[in-house]
Amino acid sequence: MKIKYNLIKKAGNARYGKLETNYGTYETPMFMPVGTLANVKTLVPEELKDVNSGIILSNTYHLWLRPGEDIVAKAGGLHKFMNYDGPILTDSGGFQVFSLVKDKKKDITEQGVHFKSHIDGKPLFLTPELSIQIQNKLDSDIAMSFDECIPPNASYEYTKASTERTLRWAKRGKKVFDNERQSLFGIVQGGAFSDLRKYSAEETVKLDFDGYSIGGVAIGEEKPVTYQMIDDAIKYLPENKPRYLMGVGEPLDIIEGIERGVDMFDCVLPTRLARHGNAFTPYGKINLKNAKYKQDFEPIDVECDCYTCQNYSKAYIRHLMVAKESLGGRLLSIHNIRFLIKLTEDARAAIKNESYQEFKEKFINKYQK
Amino acid sequence: MKIKYNLIKKAGNARYGKLETNYGTYETPMFMPVGTLANVKTLVPEELKDVNSGIILSNTYHLWLRPGEDIVAKAGGLHKFMNYDGPILTDSGGFQVFSLVKDKKKDITEQGVHFKSHIDGKPLFLTPELSIQIQNKLDSDIAMSFDECIPPNASYEYTKASTERTLRWAKRGKKVFDNERQSLFGIVQGGAFSDLRKYSAEETVKLDFDGYSIGGVAIGEEKPVTYQMIDDAIKYLPENKPRYLMGVGEPLDIIEGIERGVDMFDCVLPTRLARHGNAFTPYGKINLKNAKYKQDFEPIDVECDCYTCQNYSKAYIRHLMVAKESLGGRLLSIHNIRFLIKLTEDARAAIKNESYQEFKEKFINKYQK
Repeated sequence: MKIKYNLIKKAGNARYGKLETNYGTYETPMFMPVGTLANVKTLVPEELKDVNSGIILSNTYHLWLRPGEDIVAKAGGLHKFMNYDGPILTDSGGFQVFSLVKDKKKDITEQGVHFKSHIDGKPLFLTPELSIQIQNKLDSDIAMSFDECIPPNASYEYTKASTERTLRWAKRGKKVFDNERQSLFGIVQGGAFSDLRKYSAEETVKLDFDGYSIGGVAIGEEKPVTYQMIDDAIKYLPENKPRYLMGVGEPLDIIEGIERGVDMFDCVLPTRLARHGNAFTPYGKINLKNAKYKQDFEPIDVECDCYTCQNYSKAYIRHLMVAKESLGGRLLSIHNIRFLIKLTEDARAAIKNESYQEFKEKFINKYQK
Repeated sequence: MKIKYNLIKKAGNARYGKLETNYGTYETPMFMPVGTLANVKTLVPEELKDVNSGIILSNTYHLWLRPGEDIVAKAGGLHKFMNYDGPILTDSGGFQVFSLVKDKKKDITEQGVHFKSHIDGKPLFLTPELSIQIQNKLDSDIAMSFDECIPPNASYEYTKASTERTLRWAKRGKKVFDNERQSLFGIVQGGAFSDLRKYSAEETVKLDFDGYSIGGVAIGEEKPVTYQMIDDAIKYLPENKPRYLMGVGEPLDIIEGIERGVDMFDCVLPTRLARHGNAFTPYGKINLKNAKYKQDFEPIDVECDCYTCQNYSKAYIRHLMVAKESLGGRLLSIHNIRFLIKLTEDARAAIKNESYQEFKEKFINKYQK
């Protein structure tokens, strides 16, 4: 079935809602952990359920290259392949073409994007149709339109032309889309230009997607610009569809995004931070490799309900990180993902209680001190 | 409390027994997974319990260097530090001095061994007393005497002198041993010389340890030599104490060891193989990176009851290994450890049923075909 968004309560622009999916109903705003290569790095599905994760994200570009969408399809789709019986969102590959390809060189044509594989340099050609066809085969619950992620320094002229092309790509992708149990989201681009964000949002909405995402933000511009880009797009998005802010996972950005009416967030940040020994805490990020945790036998956060904080000390995790034992990254991934999911749970409670501003101020005061 | 071994049934020399420990009673013969740095690589304690693991091993040499025995002691001992409420055996560091130290250069004196850290080349000096004192602080359930692991090519003269020194070291370690809830095992050396194995076994037994291990085997010599070394030592060990064959984890060696009267085995093999994509199966080892598993949607072993085989296909694990996702090694570690533990469970059942020879032949025929 197509996903269905039910708006239950608003507090300012912040929204509390419920998202009906093929795999149950989940509350929003939500944070979606990223499972790039059909796994959230180091973790199994049971651990994601334990941290109260709902939708997870997986990457079309990565799965296209390895193991290939046909193998995933033969396995019975992405859920069966990776043993995850929860909802999965696949991105379109547009962001990876922007951020990951070999030498960052690409040739963007009306037809699609020519670039080289980040693995072996092999020439590749990704089109809006192919992105959708791969996602149809992966059989995720939510697919994304193929877009160009515009660099932060792009000119008005370039941004306008690219935004218009992304709209044409969205139409082409929608045309070939063929999976009844999958939903399709459109992506609003427009760079840092308010009128282009408005144009992109309005034109994308006209195409009637199952949800809308705001793309091309938090990729290098200053925070006020990021927040302005969200404001410029979101006011033209319909109330009855979910809004997804792509690639955003910093706690403060999540809080600002929720305040502006965003329902869904994803980011590799919790697992990437974990691999480098970093943990979120209510008082900001800490790095467990720091010598001061050598004899700190307290958990990362005494108030955290995650498996890691219930069972392990900072000293133990520090030891694992220093000794390069991958269990350290695993334990930190559990904690960091739980931290962001708990943040959205608290945000939801605050919206329901009409206390979002107090919640926000309290969190920020603690987190930044 | 000191461990207590109860011999329940013999089939030839093979023994079925029970080992009472500080953390419950476990059946033998048993395979002990290795948690070198206070974790069985990639796994949490719950996963070890799930595969029906009993005693696990941890390495004194590694923990001495990182995080240091004083930090483990301050954490409340190794169990609390790593959150494992099952029995733990620590080795003495003797094997690591033999196999791991920088440039493999060491200076063995009567007092102890001078060598360089494998991490930073720092000069280190490990003595029989220090090894025991470190283990006392780590507060494992079973500590091992400090010994010299004699190279396979050593002369009779060298082996005799070293074996005698190891006996003197065993006495010295026993003298300083000071931990009431910890047991202490002696180690039989003697190289590939039957008379020296006899001498070492008899003299070690005279020192009255809580258990005896056979050391210096399976480190490069041919299989018949390995098995002879076990035979040459084990017949002089008392029936009422557990016998531990150190560092042995190949399925066929475990089966031969059990037949000869060994009760305990340990090896890094299941986790090391896992990290390289290898899995035990009843038909021998397979490497999941092999292209032939690309579209193999069956589990590694349809009859295996482990979490990995219950939930994941060879194609998925192959994908994880090829994409260098550490979850692949984690899933394979679970399977490989379960495989060796199940092997000992089946061996125990066969001893109880007086069908050990049939069990052995059946296993070998399948495994080697």
